[in-house]
Amino acid sequence: MQFSFSDKVKDMKPSAIREIFKSLTDPSVISFAAGNPAAESFPIEQMSQISSDIFTNNAVPALQYSITEGYTPLRTQISNRLASKFCIDIAANETIITTGGQQGIDLTAKCLCNEGDTVICENPSFIGALNAFRSYNIHLVGVELEDDGMNIEQLEKALNENKNTKLIYTIPTFQNPAGITASLEKRKAVYTLAKKYGVVILEDNPYGELRFAGEEIPTIKSIDTDNIVVYCSSLSKILSAGMRIGYLCGPAQIIQKVVVTKQVNDVHTNIFFQMLCSEFIDRYGLDDHVAKIKNLYLKKSSLMLDMLDNNMPEWTHYTRPQGGLFIWCTLPDKYDGDEFARFAAANKVAVVPGSTFCPTQGEHSSSFRLNYSTPSDEQIVIGIERLSEIVKSLNK
Amino acid sequence: MQFSFSDKVKDMKPSAIREIFKSLTDPSVISFAAGNPAAESFPIEQMSQISSDIFTNNAVPALQYSITEGYTPLRTQISNRLASKFCIDIAANETIITTGGQQGIDLTAKCLCNEGDTVICENPSFIGALNAFRSYNIHLVGVELEDDGMNIEQLEKALNENKNTKLIYTIPTFQNPAGITASLEKRKAVYTLAKKYGVVILEDNPYGELRFAGEEIPTIKSIDTDNIVVYCSSLSKILSAGMRIGYLCGPAQIIQKVVVTKQVNDVHTNIFFQMLCSEFIDRYGLDDHVAKIKNLYLKKSSLMLDMLDNNMPEWTHYTRPQGGLFIWCTLPDKYDGDEFARFAAANKVAVVPGSTFCPTQGEHSSSFRLNYSTPSDEQIVIGIERLSEIVKSLNK
Repeated sequence: MQFSFSDKVKDMKPSAIREIFKSLTDPSVISFAAGNPAAESFPIEQMSQISSDIFTNNAVPALQYSITEGYTPLRTQISNRLASKFCIDIAANETIITTGGQQGIDLTAKCLCNEGDTVICENPSFIGALNAFRSYNIHLVGVELEDDGMNIEQLEKALNENKNTKLIYTIPTFQNPAGITASLEKRKAVYTLAKKYGVVILEDNPYGELRFAGEEIPTIKSIDTDNIVVYCSSLSKILSAGMRIGYLCGPAQIIQKVVVTKQVNDVHTNIFFQMLCSEFIDRYGLDDHVAKIKNLYLKKSSLMLDMLDNNMPEWTHYTRPQGGLFIWCTLPDKYDGDEFARFAAANKVAVVPGSTFCPTQGEHSSSFRLNYSTPSDEQIVIGIERLSEIVKSLNK
Repeated sequence: MQFSFSDKVKDMKPSAIREIFKSLTDPSVISFAAGNPAAESFPIEQMSQISSDIFTNNAVPALQYSITEGYTPLRTQISNRLASKFCIDIAANETIITTGGQQGIDLTAKCLCNEGDTVICENPSFIGALNAFRSYNIHLVGVELEDDGMNIEQLEKALNENKNTKLIYTIPTFQNPAGITASLEKRKAVYTLAKKYGVVILEDNPYGELRFAGEEIPTIKSIDTDNIVVYCSSLSKILSAGMRIGYLCGPAQIIQKVVVTKQVNDVHTNIFFQMLCSEFIDRYGLDDHVAKIKNLYLKKSSLMLDMLDNNMPEWTHYTRPQGGLFIWCTLPDKYDGDEFARFAAANKVAVVPGSTFCPTQGEHSSSFRLNYSTPSDEQIVIGIERLSEIVKSLNK
């Protein structure tokens, strides 16, 4: 039988990154293509002890069906953390635990957008979010990402031209893939426009805890006097990515609808690990552990930047992140990022081509993304030397 | 701001069952409303030992991002189990691990159905599936469930009248809520019609391992010579419901599309528990453990049936399940199941009203669902006595 797929998904293809991830079995390839937290960032010993304690003292609730909203103590802890760390004042019942941050994005889109509705996002932007929007047949409009955040004129133009815009999707802090952090002015400008046009903002902040340089900038959610911002994050980059614990917080009316939608999506998120995270926060807090990760990523990003500074020809450009996991490199416009990534892979360095992150498929990009959290220091040194040779060979 | 929700979800309400579940905090209420596996069915000690071993020997892969398809050894084990236990011959790469069986249903619907397309299902049917279909604005057509499965004439009529039918959703074995098992003849008839009309079958078999009486009947997937059946199940009723480990298997073309859709839904299912389940199956197999659960449910269902036989007035009807978790009670048609459930709750017994399981919302039902896996023996005895008094009081 020839199967016919829904209009929503019929053109969907596997994410280039996850495909790269699957093919990285050749040990001679150095990969800067992942978006994984460093293996050293997992607090294995503490998690192991807590896990053992849950099995001893509280096993049945940890293995039985639970409520869709998530483990109540964890929701309270997240609400408290958002208040103390990000000046976000949100009640515990305005949060929901999701199966990773990804599910928070997926369900927000499902709840707010009909097929054909528009989501405005940064160009480039997070491929997982773009593909989630595509999977609901949502129309994507990209707005150029400048050094201090979205181009505000382009954003207003996009809002004017797309009256069916339901959502502005933005990663203001340590953006993926670009590593850029939006200024407070730009954040306020985005917020003002969202209010003016009656559009919800989905603020994605998976890396917000990981600032290793520069000054904190308030989240958009923290200036959300009109309650129009849905805020999405996770514990993936702090405790463990594989456990799939994320959260969403926002207007009660939207969260309630997300709860109903999650109920039919996966009933609830793995409850054992929700309890484990809650107990971790209870026993140790997050500050000490996060400080270790920040220290690690400061070292790794500095090493990669030093290597780039010392080896790359001066006609390449790259961002200097103050947090997060990524550096964004741009070649002169005449080069094609896709071709370059293939060429680099053939020469044993994996990077993610910039076109992957374009809201419009098939768009030209001469950029590529580098990740410094996953490779070892030695891999960073050898890999960037290797990559620089490849870049230099282009100009011959 | 007044939020506008998508057409898909705007009319969605929380599942009555999950709401009942949340409100069951009054310890004086005896609940037959849950669908939970018995707490005694969780192999806590073995899981605890395996968990500890994973943290000691294999922690990083268990906490890091993983592939969307699922943990490869577990997919192979599931493929082997389906072959040995259910005569289902499917390659490991035609399976995907899902976040509970629920996600398998949700993603299958998303991949195959546009808004307005029809899914034909049994009436009554599993509320979680019905609401998943509704969340994609799918048109539901119910087919009467008889003592031996779907009414085949009604099924053909529904197929004829709804040319946009994309899926027949069926729970042939120990149906939820009705506890009914379809005969082999009916299974073959459903399959023949699906072939004739070019429609995919989604066979949901979450309770298939739990036969405690009668003879095994082949799954529809096992007679699927034309490869048009997607088969959905989980480890929720065997190892743990709260861990959210399910699986889907079917035509490679469909599974590939489900993989892409899952990638943007939650990236992958909690990998730690995938590894834990795999290691459990490796060390202990499933047979011994499943035998214990079947023994437990045989006892509990027999106790509930004995209590019903001895206490209910003869004008009530109830099914006699050979497996699974549920008994389906039907009052004379003049009674309203919703009213009855409220009346019973006021008298300290919780049941789920039949209308909850109707594909058409607001449909009359004089039935209600009883669960015997969750309550203790004492609760079954007292609760059914209490329920019988409530039923008897109706006829005064």
